[in-house]
Amino acid sequence: MHEYRTRRRVEFVDTDLSGIAHFSRYLVFMENCEHEFLNALGLSVFMEMDGQRIVWPRVAASCEYLSPARFEDVLEVHLKVLRKGGKSLTYGFEITREGTLVARGRTTAVCCVLDGSEVRSIPIPETIAGRIEEAPE
Amino acid sequence: MHEYRTRRRVEFVDTDLSGIAHFSRYLVFMENCEHEFLNALGLSVFMEMDGQRIVWPRVAASCEYLSPARFEDVLEVHLKVLRKGGKSLTYGFEITREGTLVARGRTTAVCCVLDGSEVRSIPIPETIAGRIEEAPE
Amino acid sequence: MHEYRTRRRVEFVDTDLSGIAHFSRYLVFMENCEHEFLNALGLSVFMEMDGQRIVWPRVAASCEYLSPARFEDVLEVHLKVLRKGGKSLTYGFEITREGTLVARGRTTAVCCVLDGSEVRSIPIPETIAGRIEEAPE
Amino acid sequence: MHEYRTRRRVEFVDTDLSGIAHFSRYLVFMENCEHEFLNALGLSVFMEMDGQRIVWPRVAASCEYLSPARFEDVLEVHLKVLRKGGKSLTYGFEITREGTLVARGRTTAVCCVLDGSEVRSIPIPETIAGRIEEAPE
Repeated sequence: MHEYRTRRRVEFVDTDLSGIAHFSRYLVFMENCEHEFLNALGLSVFMEMDGQRIVWPRVAASCEYLSPARFEDVLEVHLKVLRKGGKSLTYGFEITREGTLVARGRTTAVCCVLDGSEVRSIPIPETIAGRIEEAPE
Repeated sequence: MHEYRTRRRVEFVDTDLSGIAHFSRYLVFMENCEHEFLNALGLSVFMEMDGQRIVWPRVAASCEYLSPARFEDVLEVHLKVLRKGGKSLTYGFEITREGTLVARGRTTAVCCVLDGSEVRSIPIPETIAGRIEEAPE
Repeated sequence: MHEYRTRRRVEFVDTDLSGIAHFSRYLVFMENCEHEFLNALGLSVFMEMDGQRIVWPRVAASCEYLSPARFEDVLEVHLKVLRKGGKSLTYGFEITREGTLVARGRTTAVCCVLDGSEVRSIPIPETIAGRIEEAPE
Repeated sequence: MHEYRTRRRVEFVDTDLSGIAHFSRYLVFMENCEHEFLNALGLSVFMEMDGQRIVWPRVAASCEYLSPARFEDVLEVHLKVLRKGGKSLTYGFEITREGTLVARGRTTAVCCVLDGSEVRSIPIPETIAGRIEEAPE
């Protein structure tokens, strides 16, 4: 699988004083779409595998804000796998509202083992990597 | 003025299940530093000027995560003005913990008038622009 | 109408370092259920009526936490109207996970007109009050 | 020690569409005051003790909202220990702004050992209990 779409309604708590969704919340909208993508593959962003706790800390995130999202707007979040590296995944996101582009973002997450409170990067296990493909250009 | 430094302690609510500060919170750490920078200039990110409400919606934000920030870590956030455009300001941020680079980010905010629930970009008023300089390379 | 049910999946960003949903987030789960209840009545928590902006600031909120909610748990949130006053509504909430009681809460919101940045309480307009009943004991 | 005072400035991200601090954020203001209180005693809300991880999940939280808190307001948060039980602590909070009462709240936290992802309540260890007293009426 190389893409996923979900919907998200802008909640009251997402908004700020200027009447629009706070810019940090778009990262959460993108993250939740990524988590649902993994769920759709039978995986989770926080899963046990061979007795190890696999987590995906982010090494980079970015977002361009093109049109303000407001309370009760229903946003469509569209994820594409931009790059599948040996140890990392880069996702691209488009957030739209009724066809209008609201934001465009990108995150890179690294496959890690959580050991106590330390994380250590590992090659993406085949069980995970085998289910994920890069999106065609 | 072209730079500003503040400190921020990682709060319990900033953390997530993996034991580190949630990646979306770094945007908040950067934003609060920007707001304090404006305060230090006698300004605010949400101010009345000549009967108009000036706001600064973001058009872009990005962050690279280099070292995890944990509960109770004291982070130093260092803002530099990277670019002063006619209608926008681009800030660069370095977040460090006792000299270790934790994250590096950038945001671009556009000067706007808030009119009801609509925003409209305007040239940065001279009262504001006159107090802000680009940081030397 | 006097009750409403919705579902909510615990998101990664809802969790904290101790591995469970942060206690402040339950207020958000309850609030969103209230907002959906109003939507189901053809209303909104932030609506224009006769040229006035009606909002519902909270005057009280409380929650008892009975069983921890974890990442990816699907919670059922059940709202009941406990009291319909002249100017306020008191809601009771039960949050369950597969039949297990996770939390029990209560909020009281006051009907107000938002005037610039000031709020002023008003009797609940009949268009709203007429659609809401107190739940039977 | 039986009381503690701290200050908190209302951040942009704390606010919502109605122009005031979101009601769930007051729980965070109270929580952070509690954490600073513990720090002032040489303790932490998330600490290792005799090889065990001690955490303090909440079993109850409540808040009355008396006057809206706005962006850039400087709030004083005043904690009092209302009750020191065998396994739990109940804190009372008053949040004021220049002497005006903004909110009044209460939380009860239970002393627990975190064991993997499970928590188990324990008697408050003497090292902790010995430093905390109930406030006089």
